[in-house]
Amino acid sequence: MKTGKRPAGIPALASDRTIGRLSLYRRMLYNAKSEGRRYIYSHEIASLVGVTPAQVRRDLMSIGYSGSPNRGYDTNELLRSIEVFLYAPDGQNVVLAGVGNLGRAILAYFTGRRPRLQIVASFDSDPMKANRVILGCRCHPLSELAKVVKEQRVDVGILTVPASAAQDVAENLVAAGVTGIVNFAPVALRVPPNVYVEDIDLAMALEKVAFFSRQSRKEPRAGGNE
Amino acid sequence: MKTGKRPAGIPALASDRTIGRLSLYRRMLYNAKSEGRRYIYSHEIASLVGVTPAQVRRDLMSIGYSGSPNRGYDTNELLRSIEVFLYAPDGQNVVLAGVGNLGRAILAYFTGRRPRLQIVASFDSDPMKANRVILGCRCHPLSELAKVVKEQRVDVGILTVPASAAQDVAENLVAAGVTGIVNFAPVALRVPPNVYVEDIDLAMALEKVAFFSRQSRKEPRAGGNE
Repeated sequence: MKTGKRPAGIPALASDRTIGRLSLYRRMLYNAKSEGRRYIYSHEIASLVGVTPAQVRRDLMSIGYSGSPNRGYDTNELLRSIEVFLYAPDGQNVVLAGVGNLGRAILAYFTGRRPRLQIVASFDSDPMKANRVILGCRCHPLSELAKVVKEQRVDVGILTVPASAAQDVAENLVAAGVTGIVNFAPVALRVPPNVYVEDIDLAMALEKVAFFSRQSRKEPRAGGNE
Repeated sequence: MKTGKRPAGIPALASDRTIGRLSLYRRMLYNAKSEGRRYIYSHEIASLVGVTPAQVRRDLMSIGYSGSPNRGYDTNELLRSIEVFLYAPDGQNVVLAGVGNLGRAILAYFTGRRPRLQIVASFDSDPMKANRVILGCRCHPLSELAKVVKEQRVDVGILTVPASAAQDVAENLVAAGVTGIVNFAPVALRVPPNVYVEDIDLAMALEKVAFFSRQSRKEPRAGGNE
Protein backbone atom coordinates (compact mmCIF):
# COMPACT_ATOMS: atom_id res chain seq x y z
CA MET A 1 0.00 0.00 0.00
CA LYS A 2 1.32 3.42 -0.88
CA THR A 3 1.36 6.27 1.55
CA GLY A 4 -0.07 9.43 0.12
CA LYS A 5 -3.02 11.65 -0.39
CA ARG A 6 -5.13 12.29 -3.42
CA PRO A 7 -5.83 15.91 -4.11
CA ALA A 8 -8.70 17.14 -1.98
CA GLY A 9 -12.09 16.84 -3.59
CA ILE A 10 -15.24 14.91 -3.07
CA PRO A 11 -15.60 11.63 -4.95
CA ALA A 12 -18.67 11.34 -7.10
CA LEU A 13 -20.23 8.67 -4.94
CA ALA A 14 -20.04 8.28 -1.21
CA SER A 15 -22.52 5.87 0.23
CA ASP A 16 -24.64 6.43 3.26
CA ARG A 17 -22.73 3.76 5.16
CA THR A 18 -19.33 5.06 4.17
CA ILE A 19 -20.19 8.50 5.50
CA GLY A 20 -21.49 6.94 8.72
CA ARG A 21 -18.24 5.06 9.21
CA LEU A 22 -16.09 8.10 8.37
CA SER A 23 -17.99 9.97 11.05
CA LEU A 24 -17.12 7.21 13.53
CA TYR A 25 -13.46 7.12 12.46
CA ARG A 26 -13.30 10.86 12.93
CA ARG A 27 -14.48 10.58 16.51
CA MET A 28 -12.13 7.71 17.19
CA LEU A 29 -9.20 9.70 15.83
CA TYR A 30 -10.22 12.78 17.76
CA ASN A 31 -10.11 10.73 20.96
CA ALA A 32 -6.80 9.11 19.99
CA LYS A 33 -5.32 12.53 19.30
CA SER A 34 -6.58 13.84 22.64
CA GLU A 35 -4.76 10.94 24.29
CA GLY A 36 -1.55 11.98 22.55
CA ARG A 37 -1.46 9.14 19.99
CA ARG A 38 0.66 10.23 17.02
CA TYR A 39 0.05 7.14 14.87
CA ILE A 40 -2.75 4.65 14.67
CA TYR A 41 -3.13 1.38 12.72
CA SER A 42 -6.15 0.50 10.61
CA HIS A 43 -6.71 -2.59 12.77
CA GLU A 44 -6.98 -0.38 15.87
CA ILE A 45 -9.55 1.88 14.25
CA ALA A 46 -11.34 -1.21 12.96
CA SER A 47 -11.64 -2.88 16.33
CA LEU A 48 -12.94 0.30 17.98
CA VAL A 49 -15.56 0.82 15.30
CA GLY A 50 -16.44 -2.84 14.82
CA VAL A 51 -15.55 -3.32 11.16
CA THR A 52 -12.70 -5.13 9.42
CA PRO A 53 -9.29 -3.45 8.94
CA ALA A 54 -9.76 -3.94 5.18
CA GLN A 55 -13.00 -1.92 5.38
CA VAL A 56 -11.21 0.89 7.20
CA ARG A 57 -8.47 0.97 4.57
CA ARG A 58 -11.02 0.96 1.72
CA ASP A 59 -12.99 3.80 3.30
CA LEU A 60 -9.88 5.88 3.89
CA MET A 61 -8.59 5.22 0.37
CA SER A 62 -11.95 6.38 -0.93
CA ILE A 63 -11.13 9.81 0.48
CA GLY A 64 -7.63 9.57 -0.94
CA TYR A 65 -5.77 8.46 2.13
CA SER A 66 -3.60 5.44 2.85
CA GLY A 67 -1.47 4.61 5.85
CA SER A 68 2.09 3.42 6.15
CA PRO A 69 2.27 -0.32 6.87
CA ASN A 70 5.06 0.28 9.35
CA ARG A 71 3.74 2.90 11.70
CA GLY A 72 0.10 3.26 10.69
CA TYR A 73 -1.72 6.48 9.95
CA ASP A 74 -0.62 9.86 11.22
CA THR A 75 -3.49 10.52 13.63
CA ASN A 76 -3.57 14.25 13.21
CA GLU A 77 -3.25 14.27 9.42
CA LEU A 78 -5.90 11.61 8.99
CA LEU A 79 -8.25 13.42 11.37
CA ARG A 80 -7.84 16.60 9.36
CA SER A 81 -8.40 14.81 6.05
CA ILE A 82 -11.63 13.26 7.26
CA GLU A 83 -12.80 16.60 8.61
CA VAL A 84 -12.03 18.32 5.32
CA PHE A 85 -14.06 15.64 3.59
CA LEU A 86 -16.99 15.51 6.01
CA TYR A 87 -17.43 19.13 6.99
CA ALA A 88 -18.28 22.28 5.13
CA PRO A 89 -15.36 24.74 5.31
CA ASP A 90 -17.55 27.45 6.82
CA GLY A 91 -19.76 25.16 8.86
CA GLN A 92 -23.43 24.54 8.34
CA ASN A 93 -26.46 25.89 10.07
CA VAL A 94 -29.10 23.68 11.61
CA VAL A 95 -32.55 24.42 13.01
CA LEU A 96 -34.72 22.32 15.30
CA ALA A 97 -38.50 22.27 15.04
CA GLY A 98 -40.53 21.15 18.04
CA VAL A 99 -39.24 22.12 21.47
CA GLY A 100 -41.06 19.47 23.51
CA ASN A 101 -39.34 16.94 25.74
CA LEU A 102 -37.46 15.32 22.90
CA GLY A 103 -36.60 18.63 21.25
CA ARG A 104 -35.17 19.98 24.48
CA ALA A 105 -33.25 16.75 24.91
CA ILE A 106 -31.71 17.06 21.48
CA LEU A 107 -30.93 20.75 22.02
CA ALA A 108 -29.24 19.97 25.33
CA TYR A 109 -27.22 17.24 23.66
CA PHE A 110 -26.04 19.16 20.60
CA THR A 111 -25.82 22.76 21.71
CA GLY A 112 -22.23 23.95 21.70
CA ARG A 113 -20.84 20.49 20.96
CA ARG A 114 -20.03 20.81 17.30
CA PRO A 115 -18.89 24.19 16.05
CA ARG A 116 -19.18 23.02 12.42
CA LEU A 117 -22.85 22.16 12.83
CA GLN A 118 -24.61 24.81 14.81
CA ILE A 119 -28.23 24.82 15.86
CA VAL A 120 -28.96 28.46 15.13
CA ALA A 121 -32.67 28.54 15.93
CA SER A 122 -35.56 26.46 17.17
CA PHE A 123 -39.27 26.64 16.42
CA ASP A 124 -42.41 25.79 18.30
CA SER A 125 -46.11 26.36 17.77
CA ASP A 126 -46.63 27.05 21.47
CA PRO A 127 -46.73 30.85 21.97
CA MET A 128 -45.37 30.35 25.49
CA LYS A 129 -42.15 28.94 24.05
CA ALA A 130 -41.68 31.24 21.08
CA ASN A 131 -39.51 34.34 21.43
CA ARG A 132 -37.60 32.90 24.35
CA VAL A 133 -34.09 31.49 24.55
CA ILE A 134 -34.39 27.78 25.39
CA LEU A 135 -31.23 25.81 26.16
CA GLY A 136 -29.05 28.42 24.59
CA CYS A 137 -31.04 28.64 21.41
CA ARG A 138 -33.64 31.22 20.35
CA CYS A 139 -37.09 29.72 19.88
CA HIS A 140 -39.29 31.29 17.19
CA PRO A 141 -42.93 30.79 16.31
CA LEU A 142 -43.37 28.29 13.48
CA SER A 143 -44.71 31.12 11.33
CA GLU A 144 -41.17 32.53 11.13
CA LEU A 145 -39.63 29.29 9.93
CA ALA A 146 -39.26 30.25 6.26
CA LYS A 147 -37.79 33.66 7.11
CA VAL A 148 -35.21 32.34 9.60
CA VAL A 149 -34.17 29.37 7.44
CA LYS A 150 -33.60 31.63 4.44
CA GLU A 151 -31.84 34.41 6.36
CA GLN A 152 -29.48 32.03 8.12
CA ARG A 153 -28.96 29.83 5.05
CA VAL A 154 -29.91 26.72 6.96
CA ASP A 155 -29.13 23.34 5.35
CA VAL A 156 -30.37 20.92 7.97
CA GLY A 157 -33.56 20.61 10.00
CA ILE A 158 -34.03 18.44 13.07
CA LEU A 159 -37.65 17.42 13.35
CA THR A 160 -38.92 16.76 16.87
CA VAL A 161 -42.53 17.81 16.37
CA PRO A 162 -45.44 15.41 17.02
CA ALA A 163 -46.14 12.90 14.26
CA SER A 164 -49.27 14.75 13.20
CA ALA A 165 -47.32 17.94 12.42
CA ALA A 166 -44.21 16.38 10.93
CA GLN A 167 -45.12 16.31 7.23
CA ASP A 168 -46.30 19.92 7.29
CA VAL A 169 -43.20 21.23 9.03
CA ALA A 170 -40.96 19.13 6.77
CA GLU A 171 -42.58 20.70 3.71
CA ASN A 172 -42.04 24.18 5.14
CA LEU A 173 -38.39 23.39 5.86
CA VAL A 174 -37.85 22.08 2.33
CA ALA A 175 -39.67 24.99 0.73
CA ALA A 176 -37.36 27.37 2.61
CA GLY A 177 -34.25 25.59 1.33
CA VAL A 178 -33.43 22.81 3.78
CA THR A 179 -31.93 19.77 2.00
CA GLY A 180 -31.36 17.43 4.95
CA ILE A 181 -33.65 16.35 7.77
CA VAL A 182 -33.00 14.34 10.92
CA ASN A 183 -36.49 13.06 11.59
CA PHE A 184 -37.43 11.93 15.10
CA ALA A 185 -41.16 11.88 14.34
CA PRO A 186 -42.56 8.39 13.79
CA VAL A 187 -43.84 9.07 10.29
CA ALA A 188 -42.51 8.45 6.80
CA LEU A 189 -41.85 11.92 5.42
CA ARG A 190 -42.64 12.58 1.78
CA VAL A 191 -39.93 14.89 0.46
CA PRO A 192 -38.42 15.69 -2.94
CA PRO A 193 -35.67 13.29 -4.07
CA ASN A 194 -32.92 15.85 -3.46
CA VAL A 195 -33.67 15.98 0.26
CA TYR A 196 -31.83 13.52 2.48
CA VAL A 197 -33.81 12.20 5.46
CA GLU A 198 -32.40 10.17 8.35
CA ASP A 199 -35.08 8.67 10.59
CA ILE A 200 -34.39 8.09 14.28
CA ASP A 201 -37.16 6.48 16.25
CA LEU A 202 -36.24 6.20 19.91
CA ALA A 203 -39.46 4.56 21.03
CA MET A 204 -39.25 1.97 18.27
CA ALA A 205 -35.63 1.23 19.17
CA LEU A 206 -36.56 0.64 22.81
CA GLU A 207 -39.54 -1.54 21.88
CA LYS A 208 -37.43 -3.63 19.52
CA VAL A 209 -34.74 -4.17 22.10
CA ALA A 210 -37.34 -5.06 24.74
CA PHE A 211 -38.95 -7.57 22.38
CA PHE A 212 -35.73 -9.31 21.43
CA SER A 213 -34.41 -9.26 24.97
CA ARG A 214 -37.45 -11.35 25.93
CA GLN A 215 -36.90 -13.78 23.08
CA SER A 216 -33.41 -14.23 24.35
CA ARG A 217 -34.60 -14.89 27.91
CA LYS A 218 -36.92 -17.61 26.67
CA GLU A 219 -34.08 -19.46 25.02
CA PRO A 220 -31.63 -21.35 27.21
CA ARG A 221 -28.89 -18.90 28.00
CA ALA A 222 -25.93 -19.23 25.70
CA GLY A 223 -22.57 -19.54 27.39
CA GLY A 224 -21.49 -16.12 26.19
CA ASN A 225 -18.44 -15.54 24.07
CA GLU A 226 -16.88 -12.72 26.02
CA MET B 1 -58.18 -12.76 2.51
CA LYS B 2 -59.80 -14.30 5.55
CA THR B 3 -60.66 -12.36 8.64
CA GLY B 4 -59.51 -14.04 11.78
CA LYS B 5 -56.89 -14.45 14.40
CA ARG B 6 -54.46 -17.24 15.02
CA PRO B 7 -54.15 -18.30 18.63
CA ALA B 8 -51.84 -15.98 20.54
CA GLY B 9 -48.23 -17.03 20.56
CA ILE B 10 -44.96 -15.82 19.24
CA PRO B 11 -43.88 -17.12 15.83
CA ALA B 12 -40.49 -18.73 15.77
CA LEU B 13 -38.97 -16.00 13.67
CA ALA B 14 -39.72 -12.32 13.71
CA SER B 15 -37.19 -10.17 11.96
CA ASP B 16 -35.72 -7.00 13.27
CA ARG B 17 -37.51 -5.00 10.59
CA THR B 18 -40.86 -6.66 11.16
CA ILE B 19 -40.73 -5.78 14.85
CA GLY B 20 -39.78 -2.22 13.99
CA ARG B 21 -42.76 -1.90 11.66
CA LEU B 22 -45.14 -3.49 14.15
CA SER B 23 -44.01 -0.89 16.67
CA LEU B 24 -44.87 1.83 14.14
CA TYR B 25 -48.25 0.29 13.30
CA ARG B 26 -49.03 0.13 17.00
CA ARG B 27 -48.41 3.84 17.41
CA MET B 28 -50.39 4.64 14.28
CA LEU B 29 -53.32 2.57 15.56
CA TYR B 30 -53.09 4.12 18.99
CA ASN B 31 -53.42 7.55 17.39
CA ALA B 32 -56.26 6.40 15.13
CA LYS B 33 -58.08 4.98 18.13
CA SER B 34 -57.58 8.23 20.07
CA GLU B 35 -59.21 10.03 17.15
CA GLY B 36 -62.21 7.71 17.38
CA ARG B 37 -61.49 5.65 14.26
CA ARG B 38 -63.21 2.27 14.59
CA TYR B 39 -61.83 0.76 11.38
CA ILE B 40 -58.69 1.33 9.40
CA TYR B 41 -57.53 -0.02 6.02
CA SER B 42 -54.10 -1.53 5.37
CA HIS B 43 -53.46 1.15 2.73
CA GLU B 44 -54.02 3.88 5.34
CA ILE B 45 -51.59 2.30 7.77
CA ALA B 46 -49.19 1.78 4.87
CA SER B 47 -49.20 5.38 3.74
CA LEU B 48 -48.67 6.68 7.29
CA VAL B 49 -45.73 4.35 7.89
CA GLY B 50 -44.28 4.59 4.40
CA VAL B 51 -44.49 0.95 3.27
CA THR B 52 -46.72 -0.86 0.79
CA PRO B 53 -50.20 -2.08 1.80
CA ALA B 54 -49.05 -5.62 0.92
CA GLN B 55 -46.23 -5.27 3.43
CA VAL B 56 -48.67 -4.18 6.13
CA ARG B 57 -50.92 -7.16 5.39
CA ARG B 58 -47.97 -9.57 5.43
CA ASP B 59 -46.72 -8.20 8.76
CA LEU B 60 -50.14 -8.39 10.34
CA MET B 61 -50.72 -11.91 9.03
CA SER B 62 -47.39 -12.88 10.55
CA ILE B 63 -48.92 -12.16 13.95
CA GLY B 64 -52.06 -14.03 12.92
CA TYR B 65 -54.23 -11.09 11.96
CA SER B 66 -56.01 -10.20 8.74
CA GLY B 67 -58.45 -7.44 7.96
CA SER B 68 -61.79 -7.46 6.24
CA PRO B 69 -61.55 -6.20 2.66
CA ASN B 70 -64.78 -4.29 3.13
CA ARG B 71 -64.28 -2.20 6.20
CA GLY B 72 -60.61 -2.74 7.02
CA TYR B 73 -59.19 -3.71 10.37
CA ASP B 74 -60.96 -3.17 13.66
CA THR B 75 -58.66 -0.51 15.10
CA ASN B 76 -59.05 -1.50 18.70
CA GLU B 77 -58.74 -5.24 18.18
CA LEU B 78 -55.70 -4.87 15.96
CA LEU B 79 -54.08 -2.51 18.43
CA ARG B 80 -54.60 -5.03 21.22
CA SER B 81 -53.24 -7.90 19.11
CA ILE B 82 -50.07 -6.03 18.30
CA GLU B 83 -49.63 -5.07 21.92
CA VAL B 84 -50.09 -8.66 23.05
CA PHE B 85 -47.44 -9.66 20.54
CA LEU B 86 -44.96 -6.86 21.23
CA TYR B 87 -45.20 -6.40 24.96
CA ALA B 88 -44.51 -8.60 27.93
CA PRO B 89 -47.76 -9.20 29.88
CA ASP B 90 -46.27 -7.84 33.10
CA GLY B 91 -44.12 -5.18 31.51
CA GLN B 92 -40.36 -5.07 31.43
CA ASN B 93 -37.89 -3.16 33.48
CA VAL B 94 -35.25 -0.96 31.97
CA VAL B 95 -32.21 0.80 33.45
CA LEU B 96 -30.19 3.66 32.06
CA ALA B 97 -26.44 3.96 32.60
CA GLY B 98 -24.80 7.37 32.25
CA VAL B 99 -26.76 10.39 33.44
CA GLY B 100 -24.94 13.05 31.42
CA ASN B 101 -26.64 15.38 28.96
CA LEU B 102 -27.76 12.60 26.68
CA GLY B 103 -28.81 10.32 29.54
CA ARG B 104 -30.94 13.07 31.05
CA ALA B 105 -32.42 13.71 27.65
CA ILE B 106 -33.40 10.08 27.25
CA LEU B 107 -34.77 9.94 30.80
CA ALA B 108 -36.87 13.04 30.18
CA TYR B 109 -38.16 11.56 26.97
CA PHE B 110 -39.06 8.09 28.21
CA THR B 111 -40.00 8.59 31.85
CA GLY B 112 -43.67 7.89 32.39
CA ARG B 113 -44.39 7.51 28.68
CA ARG B 114 -44.61 3.76 28.39
CA PRO B 115 -46.02 1.86 31.31
CA ARG B 116 -44.94 -1.46 29.78
CA LEU B 117 -41.33 -0.39 29.60
CA GLN B 118 -40.34 1.38 32.74
CA ILE B 119 -36.96 2.90 33.49
CA VAL B 120 -36.65 1.72 37.10
CA ALA B 121 -33.17 3.03 37.88
CA SER B 122 -30.27 4.98 36.49
CA PHE B 123 -26.55 4.74 37.20
CA ASP B 124 -23.67 7.16 37.12
CA SER B 125 -20.07 7.10 38.23
CA ASP B 126 -20.28 10.67 39.49
CA PRO B 127 -20.81 10.59 43.28
CA MET B 128 -22.66 13.93 43.01
CA LYS B 129 -25.35 12.26 40.92
CA ALA B 130 -25.64 8.92 42.69
CA ASN B 131 -28.27 8.48 45.40
CA ARG B 132 -30.42 11.28 44.05
CA VAL B 133 -33.66 11.19 42.13
CA ILE B 134 -32.97 12.64 38.69
CA LEU B 135 -35.89 13.23 36.32
CA GLY B 136 -38.15 10.98 38.33
CA CYS B 137 -35.70 8.12 38.44
CA ARG B 138 -33.37 7.06 41.26
CA CYS B 139 -29.70 7.35 40.29
CA HIS B 140 -27.34 4.77 41.84
CA PRO B 141 -23.56 4.52 41.83
CA LEU B 142 -22.30 2.21 39.10
CA SER B 143 -21.05 -0.15 41.80
CA GLU B 144 -24.66 -1.06 42.58
CA LEU B 145 -25.51 -1.96 38.98
CA ALA B 146 -25.40 -5.74 39.38
CA LYS B 147 -27.46 -5.67 42.56
CA VAL B 148 -30.21 -3.39 41.18
CA VAL B 149 -30.42 -5.18 37.81
CA LYS B 150 -30.82 -8.55 39.55
CA GLU B 151 -33.25 -7.35 42.22
CA GLN B 152 -35.50 -5.61 39.72
CA ARG B 153 -35.20 -8.34 37.07
CA VAL B 154 -34.13 -5.84 34.45
CA ASP B 155 -34.12 -7.01 30.82
CA VAL B 156 -33.01 -3.88 29.01
CA GLY B 157 -30.19 -1.40 29.51
CA ILE B 158 -29.92 2.01 27.86
CA LEU B 159 -26.29 2.96 27.49
CA THR B 160 -25.55 6.68 27.54
CA VAL B 161 -22.08 6.57 29.08
CA PRO B 162 -19.02 7.99 27.31
CA ALA B 163 -17.51 5.77 24.61
CA SER B 164 -14.54 4.89 26.79
CA ALA B 165 -16.78 3.37 29.49
CA ALA B 166 -19.36 1.70 27.25
CA GLN B 167 -17.82 -1.78 26.84
CA ASP B 168 -17.21 -2.13 30.58
CA VAL B 169 -20.70 -1.06 31.57
CA ALA B 170 -22.22 -3.26 28.85
CA GLU B 171 -20.36 -6.25 30.25
CA ASN B 172 -21.62 -5.50 33.74
CA LEU B 173 -25.19 -5.19 32.48
CA VAL B 174 -24.93 -8.49 30.63
CA ALA B 175 -23.31 -10.27 33.57
CA ALA B 176 -26.21 -9.12 35.75
CA GLY B 177 -28.78 -10.55 33.33
CA VAL B 178 -29.60 -7.84 30.80
CA THR B 179 -30.31 -9.32 27.35
CA GLY B 180 -31.03 -6.15 25.35
CA ILE B 181 -29.11 -2.89 25.05
CA VAL B 182 -29.98 0.41 23.40
CA ASN B 183 -26.50 1.76 22.79
CA PHE B 184 -26.01 5.50 22.32
CA ALA B 185 -22.24 5.30 22.79
CA PRO B 186 -20.28 5.51 19.53
CA VAL B 187 -18.54 2.16 19.96
CA ALA B 188 -19.17 -1.34 18.65
CA LEU B 189 -20.08 -3.31 21.76
CA ARG B 190 -18.79 -6.88 22.04
CA VAL B 191 -21.55 -8.89 23.70
CA PRO B 192 -22.57 -12.57 23.78
CA PRO B 193 -24.72 -13.70 20.84
CA ASN B 194 -27.88 -13.90 22.95
CA VAL B 195 -27.79 -10.18 23.69
CA TYR B 196 -29.61 -7.87 21.28
CA VAL B 197 -27.99 -4.49 20.70
CA GLU B 198 -29.55 -1.53 18.89
CA ASP B 199 -27.09 1.27 18.16
CA ILE B 200 -28.27 4.86 17.96
CA ASP B 201 -25.67 7.44 17.11
CA LEU B 202 -27.13 10.93 17.17
CA ALA B 203 -23.93 12.73 16.25
CA MET B 204 -23.34 10.41 13.31
CA ALA B 205 -26.90 10.89 12.11
CA LEU B 206 -26.51 14.66 12.16
CA GLU B 207 -23.12 14.53 10.40
CA LYS B 208 -24.51 12.24 7.70
CA VAL B 209 -27.50 14.48 7.07
CA ALA B 210 -25.26 17.56 6.97
CA PHE B 211 -22.94 15.88 4.47
CA PHE B 212 -25.66 14.76 2.10
CA SER B 213 -27.55 18.03 2.42
CA ARG B 214 -24.44 19.73 1.01
CA GLN B 215 -24.15 17.25 -1.84
CA SER B 216 -27.70 18.07 -2.69
CA ARG B 217 -27.02 21.81 -2.68
CA LYS B 218 -24.17 21.33 -5.12
CA GLU B 219 -26.39 19.60 -7.63
CA PRO B 220 -28.87 21.65 -9.59
CA ARG B 221 -32.04 21.61 -7.58
CA ALA B 222 -34.45 18.93 -8.68
CA GLY B 223 -37.96 20.08 -9.39
CA GLY B 224 -39.31 18.30 -6.37
CA ASN B 225 -42.03 15.69 -6.49
CA GLU B 226 -44.28 17.03 -3.78
